[in-house]
Amino acid sequence: MKLRSRHLLGLEGMTREEINLILDTAESFKEILERPIRIVPTLRGVTVVNLFYEPSTRTRISFELAEKRLSAEVVSFSANTSSVRKGETLKDTVRNIEAMKIDMVVVRHQCSGVPYFLTQCLDSSIINAGDGAHEHPTQALLDLFTIKEKYKEIKGLKVVIVGDIKYSRVARSDIWGFTTMGAKVAVCGPATLMPYEIEKMGIEVYDDVDQALEGADVVNVLRIQLERQEGGLLPSLREYTNKFGINIDRLKRLNENFTIMHPGPINRGVEITPEVADGPYSVILNQVTNGVAIRMAVLYLLSGGEAKVE
Amino acid sequence: MKLRSRHLLGLEGMTREEINLILDTAESFKEILERPIRIVPTLRGVTVVNLFYEPSTRTRISFELAEKRLSAEVVSFSANTSSVRKGETLKDTVRNIEAMKIDMVVVRHQCSGVPYFLTQCLDSSIINAGDGAHEHPTQALLDLFTIKEKYKEIKGLKVVIVGDIKYSRVARSDIWGFTTMGAKVAVCGPATLMPYEIEKMGIEVYDDVDQALEGADVVNVLRIQLERQEGGLLPSLREYTNKFGINIDRLKRLNENFTIMHPGPINRGVEITPEVADGPYSVILNQVTNGVAIRMAVLYLLSGGEAKVE
Amino acid sequence: MKLRSRHLLGLEGMTREEINLILDTAESFKEILERPIRIVPTLRGVTVVNLFYEPSTRTRISFELAEKRLSAEVVSFSANTSSVRKGETLKDTVRNIEAMKIDMVVVRHQCSGVPYFLTQCLDSSIINAGDGAHEHPTQALLDLFTIKEKYKEIKGLKVVIVGDIKYSRVARSDIWGFTTMGAKVAVCGPATLMPYEIEKMGIEVYDDVDQALEGADVVNVLRIQLERQEGGLLPSLREYTNKFGINIDRLKRLNENFTIMHPGPINRGVEITPEVADGPYSVILNQVTNGVAIRMAVLYLLSGGEAKVE
Repeated sequence: MKLRSRHLLGLEGMTREEINLILDTAESFKEILERPIRIVPTLRGVTVVNLFYEPSTRTRISFELAEKRLSAEVVSFSANTSSVRKGETLKDTVRNIEAMKIDMVVVRHQCSGVPYFLTQCLDSSIINAGDGAHEHPTQALLDLFTIKEKYKEIKGLKVVIVGDIKYSRVARSDIWGFTTMGAKVAVCGPATLMPYEIEKMGIEVYDDVDQALEGADVVNVLRIQLERQEGGLLPSLREYTNKFGINIDRLKRLNENFTIMHPGPINRGVEITPEVADGPYSVILNQVTNGVAIRMAVLYLLSGGEAKVE
Repeated sequence: MKLRSRHLLGLEGMTREEINLILDTAESFKEILERPIRIVPTLRGVTVVNLFYEPSTRTRISFELAEKRLSAEVVSFSANTSSVRKGETLKDTVRNIEAMKIDMVVVRHQCSGVPYFLTQCLDSSIINAGDGAHEHPTQALLDLFTIKEKYKEIKGLKVVIVGDIKYSRVARSDIWGFTTMGAKVAVCGPATLMPYEIEKMGIEVYDDVDQALEGADVVNVLRIQLERQEGGLLPSLREYTNKFGINIDRLKRLNENFTIMHPGPINRGVEITPEVADGPYSVILNQVTNGVAIRMAVLYLLSGGEAKVE
Repeated sequence: MKLRSRHLLGLEGMTREEINLILDTAESFKEILERPIRIVPTLRGVTVVNLFYEPSTRTRISFELAEKRLSAEVVSFSANTSSVRKGETLKDTVRNIEAMKIDMVVVRHQCSGVPYFLTQCLDSSIINAGDGAHEHPTQALLDLFTIKEKYKEIKGLKVVIVGDIKYSRVARSDIWGFTTMGAKVAVCGPATLMPYEIEKMGIEVYDDVDQALEGADVVNVLRIQLERQEGGLLPSLREYTNKFGINIDRLKRLNENFTIMHPGPINRGVEITPEVADGPYSVILNQVTNGVAIRMAVLYLLSGGEAKVE
């Protein structure tokens, strides 16, 4: 089996079979990552360019490690050291890069739709590493992988996503991914940070976090962008923490064997207390570990790889 | 045959035979770039440092790809993340780098003469990736390669360079390169952006773009630096576009089978209309593709390589 | 023989045997650096992350070259292009990086103690590439290597360190290193830049540079941080140069066969005159060359390597 598309723009429209293909492939790569020598020659001769128009430590390093461990040829640049300053249009930048014979482009951009736009001008495979408030598919895939690893079966779990749903690409990708895999998804956050008609995505919407958590298995705590407050969308961080912050007390509403996720970076003491973030039910660091395996799987499959990793 | 110098500072003073050697070598490397595995072991064990004191996407990535595809050991840095901020002098920076046993240095700097200066303090091979308004030799070489690829013979062609001739290192390198190869070269631009006594380089000078284009085969449209306007050297962008912008109408003055070049990044709608930039006679993206092959050839030859690529 | 610790935080507490092990190992690596092919497979499959929270050219490039010449898998980032801007805590950044299966972390940070702190949260080997005013151990090791290379024996030499002792991590590491190896160490600088009770480190303290230099073999001239002046700690650069600057005249107080060192980057004409910096007794560039060999040795030994380099 193969993926139907050469690109990974989002989890919207991806089938359960395709998601399972990625998760199973990532499992093989995770085994490779446990070995003393973690490098395989799978993508030797394949050129990957990482275009990061937004600052990022974790996602950029995770992709770079995945690429290098697959022996790809890697060139990276961040927007602030590039000719973006010279006013080059995105299209020209990327067409130029492609003219240099690039096989795959990993792109993060503050505008939704940039990765899609690139698929329209380029022959390279495009991987969305986060575009505006649209999607961040490799994040959702590593969330799915981490949950499947723990529970074996995603179907039937209740997953609650708490925080700034409106501006979160992680929330959107997670909603597509978890609902496709058969989980029940609920979202919860301040009304000012809740997208209009979000319930049409087939999910439950709460403004009371205690109600939302009732009977949940998985809680994904989103990062609060501190700059939202300046925009008047949050009354105060203290009020946010009181109303929506995940602390030890609130965990008692969850099912036994519950799980706490966070896509990072964490604002400790704002959306989550340190006790919860570092507790035994937290899989936050597992998510990071699994991120490299997921990205190796995505790079492998999009470059034309088949289900079985040799 | 070999190049006479271990450095590539500019095309001034380079012979037709040397330029042909580089172009022929680049042709061999271009074939390698068409293969599924584009990496050759030619520069294994050779250390190359890229020093970019000016922002650059395209040239930096092009050099990095050329270096990595030749299996060189590559270290890059951009000025804004370096100890330039600590006020280290250029000479000390580079002598330090050399003390680390570097074989080749690719340097871009806002001051003319920096690459030459480095040859005076270092044993490494120096490649000029653009110095002030002086030269940008690999750009001119890829221009020559692209034109030779299309017309087989550069001799006898009429080449017009339009724009900011005064501050353009591309113009200067192109003038040396194309005249050495036997083309007739003309330049055209506002009087404020035309260097004094430029006609002594053996070229024609126009201030009317329509006259300049008459009977031309190749038009190289230079990028207008938008910051020139603040310096009072341009009346307004609209006036520049009216008087010197290359649009569909103006193309009718050219010879049949004409060619449009641009070194990028493009200001679409300023010095060139999108229709022209993206038209079938435009070789702008071929220039970019050829840039990697030219840089591989230059790196190979300067590292002591002979005419024949194995 | 092996090092006792998996980390290199500083030279404080390191034994003479351990320092000699590093210096001897570096000698083997220096021979490798003289070969035409300078790459060895020693760290194949080992992942090293370089975290530079302060700008650096020389140290960063030196570490990167050392890592790449040992065939390690290298990922680098500088703080200004990272999610540090997003307010991620240092601990979270590093735990995330470790979750990606990193074997070694090279860290430079403006706060003293950061590398130690990392050893408390991570399983990776930590190498201090300079932390605040605390230590810069690889710099002191390359200083020791350079001096041992010239004199064969460090014991009994008189070493004078001149400049901003208070804020200098180089001074502190050099004091530990040279005293451990049996040299007599003296420091000299303005009273405002001299740490309280520094003489308790077993060294001599001078405020008159001519007295300090009397009978010395080695002078290590520290860089004056020009920003200290704004803090009111220096009256004027001219006065500093008059009172503490190392010039040709002052060299006559030194022993025959004396040596001038400087950790770079140099403020020519401030703490040292160009004649002295570039004189025949200056080993400033040897220090840089030796830096790569020392860092290769440290990476090799901390990754579990034994005394003998194969």
